[in-house]
Amino acid sequence: MQKLVAYLGPEGTFTESAAIKHSPDAKLKPYPSISSVVSAITDGEAEEGIVPIENSLQGSVNDTLDLLIQHPKTFIRGELVLPVEHCLLVKRGSKCEDIRVIYSHPQALAQCRNYLEANFFGVVTVASLSTAAAADQVKNSKEIDAAIGTTRAASLYGLEILEKRIQDNQYNVTRFAVIGPSDHEPTGRDKTSLCFSFEDDRPGLLYGVMKQFADLEINLGKIESRPTGKSLGQYIFLVDLDGHRAGPAVARAIEYLDKETSWFRVFGSYPRYE
Amino acid sequence: MQKLVAYLGPEGTFTESAAIKHSPDAKLKPYPSISSVVSAITDGEAEEGIVPIENSLQGSVNDTLDLLIQHPKTFIRGELVLPVEHCLLVKRGSKCEDIRVIYSHPQALAQCRNYLEANFFGVVTVASLSTAAAADQVKNSKEIDAAIGTTRAASLYGLEILEKRIQDNQYNVTRFAVIGPSDHEPTGRDKTSLCFSFEDDRPGLLYGVMKQFADLEINLGKIESRPTGKSLGQYIFLVDLDGHRAGPAVARAIEYLDKETSWFRVFGSYPRYE
Repeated sequence: MQKLVAYLGPEGTFTESAAIKHSPDAKLKPYPSISSVVSAITDGEAEEGIVPIENSLQGSVNDTLDLLIQHPKTFIRGELVLPVEHCLLVKRGSKCEDIRVIYSHPQALAQCRNYLEANFFGVVTVASLSTAAAADQVKNSKEIDAAIGTTRAASLYGLEILEKRIQDNQYNVTRFAVIGPSDHEPTGRDKTSLCFSFEDDRPGLLYGVMKQFADLEINLGKIESRPTGKSLGQYIFLVDLDGHRAGPAVARAIEYLDKETSWFRVFGSYPRYE
Repeated sequence: MQKLVAYLGPEGTFTESAAIKHSPDAKLKPYPSISSVVSAITDGEAEEGIVPIENSLQGSVNDTLDLLIQHPKTFIRGELVLPVEHCLLVKRGSKCEDIRVIYSHPQALAQCRNYLEANFFGVVTVASLSTAAAADQVKNSKEIDAAIGTTRAASLYGLEILEKRIQDNQYNVTRFAVIGPSDHEPTGRDKTSLCFSFEDDRPGLLYGVMKQFADLEINLGKIESRPTGKSLGQYIFLVDLDGHRAGPAVARAIEYLDKETSWFRVFGSYPRYE
């Protein structure tokens, strides 16, 4: 049977591009929210799911982190990093100077602010639910307007690309997590994502964990914190480490977390995206 | 001359309540965005500004963190922690069973989701730009509808409080930062907020800083990371420490940061909110 991969939709968004890149031969199905992608995994409806987890400009996607924290049976089994390249999309034959309204997701509008000010000063910008929804609006509009979206949205909605790479910061990439009911077997070039918290806020507890990682010569790629929802000073720390949980160093670090933290969870080990 | 305190408006929001609590005798002026509050400080228009910096359920307010990172002449000089208590506001005489639409900021709607499902199943919820804007909408509506907002919004917009404390999680507090052109002199019960980053992602750099804090017996209240915007693996780390930058331990830690990090900035030392 063909593998089913759930992704944060709709079609024509960057997450769909990530899903196509990850699983070109699978059946891809869009879901309306990150939490519904997670439910598709926990319900056994889909074998894998693709959700954004981090952007180089905006930082972590908190919805994804909070859902991973809450769902002990959902694991990270892979990652992909894709450049975010915004295009200006119009109906065929529209000219730059006739554009009256530009639609897009608020984040895409924000990421192209300088471009819009330099080229479309005074043109109204309108927020859409996604870059794909913006393309759909332009397709169905009777006016001459434009959307900021992907090249894929252009072909899906029969629009013309008036200009490519209109984002202000050319280094704009998004990291996507591949989630599933289990993580990935060792490949020799793996990383492990995990999280932990402490009951009390005794000084040095976080330092103790960091020391353990350092003593085991484990490289820490990332450290992040999320509120526990219990008290303002209490956090769940999320870290990305080099190595697989089946390897000796990470396994010993996990043993330490089991003993020294009040709660921890391994999101999974998976091959580093290269 | 009366002190001018800028705050993230409009009137009737939790940030206004924080501003009133912080400076009951000052002239308070609402600003439309966090960045405009920061500009009011850098332009010398206001002497102090009040902005939300962290919520116990949602986590950090990234806009505030990113603006502090970008504005080297804006300092944190105080903090306040306020409970978030949502109320159901209606026009005088409206009855629960007649309510057709409930307006509020998306975050307030999300924080009262269980209450709304239990008591207003099937009633339409509509997103507003702020809880105060929601109260204003109810005031001017010809229908019988409701807003989720503060007790202060009720009195400002002449609405009746149908029910108090309707938030699902009773432990819902927001921390506000008092910002200004300088930080606070030592009081003996202080904390210091600062941030730093590294040019390369050599393992152990962050650990080295943590070790320094531990060796100096400095308690770390919080650690957070924000993207540098340069590369996906590069972060700016933001920490809150116990102690004043004028005290010997924190002063030595700052000397260390000056030597061992590629960039750092002290947001300020200020009395801990108690």
